[in-house]
Amino acid sequence: MGTAANAGLSKRMQKTRLSITRTARSLTAELGYNGFTIEQLCEKVGISRRTFFNYFPGKLDAIFGHSSDDIPEGAIDRFIAARPAGITGISPTLLADTVALVLEQLTFDEQAIVSSHGIFLVAHKEPELLQRMMQVGPKKEAEFLDLLADREGVAPDHPLLGVLLHAMRYSTMKAIDRFVANAGARSLAEEFMTSLEAAQELFSQPLLHTQP
Amino acid sequence: MGTAANAGLSKRMQKTRLSITRTARSLTAELGYNGFTIEQLCEKVGISRRTFFNYFPGKLDAIFGHSSDDIPEGAIDRFIAARPAGITGISPTLLADTVALVLEQLTFDEQAIVSSHGIFLVAHKEPELLQRMMQVGPKKEAEFLDLLADREGVAPDHPLLGVLLHAMRYSTMKAIDRFVANAGARSLAEEFMTSLEAAQELFSQPLLHTQP
Repeated sequence: MGTAANAGLSKRMQKTRLSITRTARSLTAELGYNGFTIEQLCEKVGISRRTFFNYFPGKLDAIFGHSSDDIPEGAIDRFIAARPAGITGISPTLLADTVALVLEQLTFDEQAIVSSHGIFLVAHKEPELLQRMMQVGPKKEAEFLDLLADREGVAPDHPLLGVLLHAMRYSTMKAIDRFVANAGARSLAEEFMTSLEAAQELFSQPLLHTQP
Repeated sequence: MGTAANAGLSKRMQKTRLSITRTARSLTAELGYNGFTIEQLCEKVGISRRTFFNYFPGKLDAIFGHSSDDIPEGAIDRFIAARPAGITGISPTLLADTVALVLEQLTFDEQAIVSSHGIFLVAHKEPELLQRMMQVGPKKEAEFLDLLADREGVAPDHPLLGVLLHAMRYSTMKAIDRFVANAGARSLAEEFMTSLEAAQELFSQPLLHTQP
């Protein structure tokens, strides 16, 4: 994702695009999807309406943002390179490598992550957001599954990859919830690890009363 | 849930209520939420409009159904009784006890589970369903968390309970997906165990590159 998607885009343009999305997200969290206009968004970012439409076709697109703006540059490349050489199938470091990738994102811009989360909290009252979310979420997840499958050399529907993706999503969502509820007393990264440590403890228990 | 919620309701009435919900779900999956009327639903179930309104205030309620219709009688009581005596905090059999509870539901009525899942597949096109789902889902989950917390004698926000709930939800959803995709080649219960076994394998890996 990262590098290729940003090819040809200057640092200044990347910054503007990111600023549009962050402002759109915080306005949505504050006022709701129908609580502000593109004009008001532009005024707050300090750009013209025309500039806005150079970056995004509409308000909803601005809120959801560009996929490469959520992840630090090079993080994906480092994740792919981390797979140990000379093995077949699931890497013994897959969990640790994926956790490291998510931790990079969580420490990249804590405030942006929390503000974008505000959208989820208002989404149930906003059909436009909800419907887009139901489309964008699965699409992003399918992309990440493809990345995992490529790295591991297994099919994207490998059960372990689905579980991994889901564990990362759950732990991230939960971390943001707790971070907001505790007013940032612990970092997002620490809150994230809490769920994963709990998962490790839970799955050290037997699955069935009579194990085979 | 089970027993108390059904107190005072005859077997015949429970059967009618369940039949309304199942029919409403399969009509929704087939025709969409706005693709059928309450009258058509009543005709298919073989009841009058008046009888319908004795059970549910509206079409959406009929689709979502009564919470105690999804679970075999006594299953919750057995789950509570299964906690080993003389321990404090999380039971060493919590995972196995919860898996047993979910397996009871999955084998209770495979076809009903699969048909109700059809709703999820059309929900992204149906704002009414989507919004209710966003309300009902978290409410049911909060009830289940309370049940877990009661049994274990810990707070409902204990990280391990959240992870457990989520693992059960994910594995159930995934099981239904695979069951439908494979035309029932393996049972729902087998598909369910596939995800849990994958989770156990995944979390046997270290979480961090340098474990403390």
